[in-house]
Amino acid sequence: MKLTCNRDNLIEGINIVQKAVPSKSTISILEGILIEVGEEVRLTGNDSDFGIVYEVPGIIEEIGSIVVNSKTFGDIIRKLPDVYVSLETDNTGNILMISSGKANYKLKTISPENYPPVSFLNTDNAIELKSDVFQAMVKETSFATSQDDKRIILQGVFMEQRENEMRCVAIDGYRLALKTAEMAEKNDYGVIVPTKILNEFVKSLKPTDEKLKFCCNANQIMFYTDTYRMVSKLYKGDYIDYKRMIPKDFKTSVVLETKAFLNALERAALVINDEKRFPVTLYFSGNDTLTVSVTTEVGAIKEEVSARVSGDELTIGFSARNFIECLRVIEDEKIVLSLLSPVSPCIITGESDPSFTYLIMPIRTR
Amino acid sequence: MKLTCNRDNLIEGINIVQKAVPSKSTISILEGILIEVGEEVRLTGNDSDFGIVYEVPGIIEEIGSIVVNSKTFGDIIRKLPDVYVSLETDNTGNILMISSGKANYKLKTISPENYPPVSFLNTDNAIELKSDVFQAMVKETSFATSQDDKRIILQGVFMEQRENEMRCVAIDGYRLALKTAEMAEKNDYGVIVPTKILNEFVKSLKPTDEKLKFCCNANQIMFYTDTYRMVSKLYKGDYIDYKRMIPKDFKTSVVLETKAFLNALERAALVINDEKRFPVTLYFSGNDTLTVSVTTEVGAIKEEVSARVSGDELTIGFSARNFIECLRVIEDEKIVLSLLSPVSPCIITGESDPSFTYLIMPIRTR
Repeated sequence: MKLTCNRDNLIEGINIVQKAVPSKSTISILEGILIEVGEEVRLTGNDSDFGIVYEVPGIIEEIGSIVVNSKTFGDIIRKLPDVYVSLETDNTGNILMISSGKANYKLKTISPENYPPVSFLNTDNAIELKSDVFQAMVKETSFATSQDDKRIILQGVFMEQRENEMRCVAIDGYRLALKTAEMAEKNDYGVIVPTKILNEFVKSLKPTDEKLKFCCNANQIMFYTDTYRMVSKLYKGDYIDYKRMIPKDFKTSVVLETKAFLNALERAALVINDEKRFPVTLYFSGNDTLTVSVTTEVGAIKEEVSARVSGDELTIGFSARNFIECLRVIEDEKIVLSLLSPVSPCIITGESDPSFTYLIMPIRTR
Repeated sequence: MKLTCNRDNLIEGINIVQKAVPSKSTISILEGILIEVGEEVRLTGNDSDFGIVYEVPGIIEEIGSIVVNSKTFGDIIRKLPDVYVSLETDNTGNILMISSGKANYKLKTISPENYPPVSFLNTDNAIELKSDVFQAMVKETSFATSQDDKRIILQGVFMEQRENEMRCVAIDGYRLALKTAEMAEKNDYGVIVPTKILNEFVKSLKPTDEKLKFCCNANQIMFYTDTYRMVSKLYKGDYIDYKRMIPKDFKTSVVLETKAFLNALERAALVINDEKRFPVTLYFSGNDTLTVSVTTEVGAIKEEVSARVSGDELTIGFSARNFIECLRVIEDEKIVLSLLSPVSPCIITGESDPSFTYLIMPIRTR
């Protein structure tokens, strides 16, 4: 194996495939990066559920493939003195020689025989998406997935499309996040994607990746761009019928500034030492104010926030954290809260952006 | 107690006194900040060995003093909505009311009776220093102090002045760091200051603090500026006669670029999984090159660095980390290495800056 490539291209590839390399694995070969040199240079990182393949441009002199320890290889390449890197194995194939400028490394390699291949999915029915749209869909829903090991499907984001509408949905026991996007082409599917993979994929997108594609079969999903492919298992099972969870009848409607409300809740959270025991109390009053208050063992806070309140006055309690996490990802300057009673969920939508809906369950105040 | 002050002034004071507040203490009152309102507003943080007092400008309406939990108080003040803060205790003194804009907090207080006072030192013989000079002295020596609990004096920086020369010295078992500064006034003292306090003090200096002062007695040292005072215990004992450690005879002298040498050593360090077993080998050759090399269980590196070598050729081994830490704090673009033999220490000085000297002990290579 022998090739020369640009150091920064190689670093970019390493950074991306390392997202799939476990730092510690019982299968030690998975702690490595597979380097395959054929018609192109391919880097692969793979744990059993999630694999990434990245193609690096390079001048290929001799084909071959090896596995090198991911951390050591990555650390070395990032520190190389020159913008060009030459990689070459010795006769035995057991040593990788790395040269750049006046620096020459020798690194022990691992035989690639037992490295598990990443199998790509058929791309005939691939779906194309705008990167910025998809990034927003993931960012505005994925935080609301559950950490509960007992309901594995809630640890994923439900991605579905019906006709021209694509939706991402996340649910934990206390809230629901829904984000929609209009698609040019009709489609019909629904899959549950592990949250970690979605987050890693959107984080890996470069500003120049205006579009991305994905395709799936019954077990796996593959996200890809021109330079890399990520293949992940899907969570199996029927997703919750989330539409039935969202109420339609309300008696109180409130319009307020997202940022002002968020700041007041963040200040209230500072005295909350136990989310479950100490919900924050929201009092929506007839004279167009929202009063945020909470009293705990640490101290108390009371703050007024300007709000346009229509309908009934209402006092209702929530986990401050559940609300804060939603408000932090909302880009709309103003939001609308729709409420029915102290024991019914609060629905949050954008005043001008209809593409997202959050539902937050109340907590009974004392 | 009742006062109004500027939020950002208060935040600055909290940030500084919190350096002396332990996050967990068996004496729970020490986890608090003492707020004293008399002719001025004073904040105090204090663990038993180290205390900081900061004066905040404020409009005082009623004198008094309380202790509040440092973390909660700091978190709240940092988040306040308005640039002005009003602090007021209720009738009982058990509750501190914090108001800013439309936000009103109530925070439980602790009685200040048992809070240990910070006793200031007599400033009659205080010594004045330029902040930038002192910051450089601390930065370029403190990293070389020991972590060894058995020789407590080596955990401190030796600060001494003889005639017009002030010196900071740090020694661990493997290296020595010495930095000198010319002083306008003659003096004669030598104290061992805990490294942590020196680092905290220089980090707290603002760009506008052009000068600082310090004074000491047999047991304590006080550093101070216009706004705050830090009082720390000193380590007791006689410091090592460091001047005798620095050799005067050399057979090899090398001039090389600090940054190029640092980069080569940092690259070499990437394959070193055990500093003691795998020293980096430096070969200073007659044809004006330094070859940096090391072979370990992880891999090997060999790199040439341009160097002007005078005198004998030499091959010598060092802990890469010990060298790297020295080179990282050197500002001079070029350094001079002075060497005698593979078992004698290396002396590092600046090519144009004579104010620092590092000594590094060699490690026998195999």
